Amino acid sequence: MSNKEFSLEELAIVADGVLSGDASLRINGFAPLDKAATGDISFLVKAGQVNKLDDFSGSAVIVPMAIETANVPLIRVDDPYLASAKIHTLFLQKTFVAKGIHKHVCLGEDVTVPDQVSIAAFVSIGDRVKLGERVSIESGVVLGDDVCIGSDTTLKANVTIAEGCKIGSHVTIFSGAVIGSDGFGYATDKQGFHTKRPQVGIVQVDDDVEIGANSCVDRAAYGVTHIKSGAKIDNLVQIAHNVVVGENSLIVSQVGIAGSTTLGRNVVLGGQVAVIDHVTLGDGVMAAARSGIHNSQKAGAQLGGAPAIPIKQFVRAATQFGKLPEMGRDIRKLKKEMAKLTAVEEE
Amino acid sequence: MSNKEFSLEELAIVADGVLSGDASLRINGFAPLDKAATGDISFLVKAGQVNKLDDFSGSAVIVPMAIETANVPLIRVDDPYLASAKIHTLFLQKTFVAKGIHKHVCLGEDVTVPDQVSIAAFVSIGDRVKLGERVSIESGVVLGDDVCIGSDTTLKANVTIAEGCKIGSHVTIFSGAVIGSDGFGYATDKQGFHTKRPQVGIVQVDDDVEIGANSCVDRAAYGVTHIKSGAKIDNLVQIAHNVVVGENSLIVSQVGIAGSTTLGRNVVLGGQVAVIDHVTLGDGVMAAARSGIHNSQKAGAQLGGAPAIPIKQFVRAATQFGKLPEMGRDIRKLKKEMAKLTAVEEE
Amino acid sequence: MSNKEFSLEELAIVADGVLSGDASLRINGFAPLDKAATGDISFLVKAGQVNKLDDFSGSAVIVPMAIETANVPLIRVDDPYLASAKIHTLFLQKTFVAKGIHKHVCLGEDVTVPDQVSIAAFVSIGDRVKLGERVSIESGVVLGDDVCIGSDTTLKANVTIAEGCKIGSHVTIFSGAVIGSDGFGYATDKQGFHTKRPQVGIVQVDDDVEIGANSCVDRAAYGVTHIKSGAKIDNLVQIAHNVVVGENSLIVSQVGIAGSTTLGRNVVLGGQVAVIDHVTLGDGVMAAARSGIHNSQKAGAQLGGAPAIPIKQFVRAATQFGKLPEMGRDIRKLKKEMAKLTAVEEE
Repeated sequence: MSNKEFSLEELAIVADGVLSGDASLRINGFAPLDKAATGDISFLVKAGQVNKLDDFSGSAVIVPMAIETANVPLIRVDDPYLASAKIHTLFLQKTFVAKGIHKHVCLGEDVTVPDQVSIAAFVSIGDRVKLGERVSIESGVVLGDDVCIGSDTTLKANVTIAEGCKIGSHVTIFSGAVIGSDGFGYATDKQGFHTKRPQVGIVQVDDDVEIGANSCVDRAAYGVTHIKSGAKIDNLVQIAHNVVVGENSLIVSQVGIAGSTTLGRNVVLGGQVAVIDHVTLGDGVMAAARSGIHNSQKAGAQLGGAPAIPIKQFVRAATQFGKLPEMGRDIRKLKKEMAKLTAVEEE
Repeated sequence: MSNKEFSLEELAIVADGVLSGDASLRINGFAPLDKAATGDISFLVKAGQVNKLDDFSGSAVIVPMAIETANVPLIRVDDPYLASAKIHTLFLQKTFVAKGIHKHVCLGEDVTVPDQVSIAAFVSIGDRVKLGERVSIESGVVLGDDVCIGSDTTLKANVTIAEGCKIGSHVTIFSGAVIGSDGFGYATDKQGFHTKRPQVGIVQVDDDVEIGANSCVDRAAYGVTHIKSGAKIDNLVQIAHNVVVGENSLIVSQVGIAGSTTLGRNVVLGGQVAVIDHVTLGDGVMAAARSGIHNSQKAGAQLGGAPAIPIKQFVRAATQFGKLPEMGRDIRKLKKEMAKLTAVEEE
Repeated sequence: MSNKEFSLEELAIVADGVLSGDASLRINGFAPLDKAATGDISFLVKAGQVNKLDDFSGSAVIVPMAIETANVPLIRVDDPYLASAKIHTLFLQKTFVAKGIHKHVCLGEDVTVPDQVSIAAFVSIGDRVKLGERVSIESGVVLGDDVCIGSDTTLKANVTIAEGCKIGSHVTIFSGAVIGSDGFGYATDKQGFHTKRPQVGIVQVDDDVEIGANSCVDRAAYGVTHIKSGAKIDNLVQIAHNVVVGENSLIVSQVGIAGSTTLGRNVVLGGQVAVIDHVTLGDGVMAAARSGIHNSQKAGAQLGGAPAIPIKQFVRAATQFGKLPEMGRDIRKLKKEMAKLTAVEEE
């Protein structure tokens, strides 16, 4: 139960769904199917599991369009997973309450801080930083000089955003993430000593991006490392200098993307994937967990393995991998038999 | 040398060992074999290396049961590695000295803080947080609202524990670890835009757990992400939402465990292992470093490779892997010879 | 454009190059080829791309020795990549301006802090810490008791250096890195409970080292985990207890090096490489991204794959990997044909 209440009709509109039942029914909470109580709406993803509604204790259910009627009021939708996310978010939405600037905040010179912000204790904000409306900054965050943060953005505890980086609106950056650390670039002399190549670019994070806990996005050598709008990045991900992550891409935990590589829109990289430097992944490329991508890929390519190959080919090859010792034995035996036969032939 | 002193007999009891030598001998320190001085006890793991005792300069040695006597007093045990850990720990144990709450700590409302705690400067503690006795919190730690910390737990510098998470007793969390970041869950519409699925659960960490530096444990979507008692987690590990890590499991550095996966007791995952979402690993499953586990596994399974297969099979197949080009050549040659022979046959 | 100015002759000396053009030409900035304006020097790495100089708008270019003359003044060098790094660095160099110790810094007892330092707000410094001249410490850094920091070293925001660790001069440690967390060592009893093996050593970081954001270097069980001079470590890298990283080694992002392993000089480990514990990699060993190294390696070895094999062998085998299903079919067919032939022979 939340402290909000909507009619079933209002929720059907949010869910872009078809109502089956009392449109005026009052709903005041969202809960999973097995935990819902009176007043709660819940959801069912698979039409084949319609019997799960039999002992349902809540008040309404979001279901796939294929379920036409049941013993409870329904909102029928194309995608219950998506519709339930929208409705649950609706119940959780809170009006921003500005807590202001805690007395133990270190503010640089010439900063722009609107009235409607919440900045917790022990936050350090550099010179000429600009914060948008309704920005929320938790304790331990450090913003370097000339950082810009858009409106409605949340920086969780202990995030670091280094000098000059630009963060959009409606962005969430989770604890321990580091935006704007130096790219890893050195020139090595004949004696093996490394001279650092200056990293003088920035990181630009566009609107509606999420960046997970302890992930790192390096600043560009020149120009911009760019995380485009709607991209979602999980925990412990490494994004190197001058990488471009396209709109709405999904980057799962522990992925590493090497320098100057460009990802198109809606690219999906599974956990621990590695992408080499200076390649381009087209729109919608999908790579299975642990893939190692060594080449540019056309839009829509589906990959697996390291070096990555088409996923179907990878799955077949991987299945065969365990049989390698047996294959080796077969080949040795065939060679012997062949030698014998050939000798006979030559007699 | 430490500032503690025990008789050899007292130490033999702690080590669960058999004394060989003067029971009243005073021991006041613990050191490796090659660095021990008078008063120190040391340890030898392998009975076959007994000659290492010849030029030993300390006062006593913990040895395997197979060594019955030597030119120094001995404590003979089944497992010198374990016994020495216990005795070394004994020498290092300190009485907790409460330093109290530093003046530069930000305390929320309605917090429960016993007298016997040490809270360093620049720690931020949310509303309704409960701390147990003898909790030690280093600088830069941030505890969200409604966090509970059990007694005798240590939070190293710059740890973040987000709102609502429950940490047990005798737990150590190392620097930069993030407990309770949001799980990575989105529902995607037909246009490719992602709607965040709310992550409203918590993380529960039971007693005697260690979590390494910069590791991340995500809060559950609903319910609990659960690290059970005695589990030890190394650095830079990713534990996703709704994962259960069983009692006394060992999770080595850079492992990633995807959402809703359950590990039994005493599971051991080597470095950089990946486990897919929604699978169950039975008690005592062991996976070699870099394994990629795609299926549920029975208790006691020993795995290697990605996709993971039984370790013995993996080792044999991996050995063969480098011979693939040669195998390919052999097959091509065999096919030619076969074609020739078959032609002959058919003549 | 920077606020510095050099003659082309002065820059040629820094670059160790040969001048072609007006030695007295004034240069006041460094920019990439396509962004250079009057007064800027730029660089070209490949002699074959000399036509890129045709529409160059800057004042001089660093080029490979093979380009003897062009329509702009040149500095001709053996390695334009290296020379340009040196000259760019020259333009960026700033005199250290000591900002002193911010009033919101927590200083322990008996600390040694020279006048010429910059210590930002919310930094916590333990007892008996020694800082060198011109040390720069950003906000949120925590230094444990007895830490030593050499001169001209920079600790970026939210770095943690635990008690007793020694950091050299001209070192940069990026945000969120953790130096001196406990090594991951336990002894397990017959019931499966783990007793922690005390980790009482330290981390020693020598001069001219860089350590990337959110990387972890564990303290030694006994003795020293040692990062030798000139080594460069990228983000999210795990260095376990008692590891030695040799001089000028390059460790790319997300690498994991297990306990007590020793790397020689100028070892290069690509992204996500794993190295097993207790092995030695000779000078100049190179491992491709994602290699899994299970054995000691001779100086100069070049590796790929997991388990790692010589890189050339790995590349050939990996190419063949996708053909495994086809190879399996070929073998089955050959076996059938052979059975038929052998039956004929035996008739």
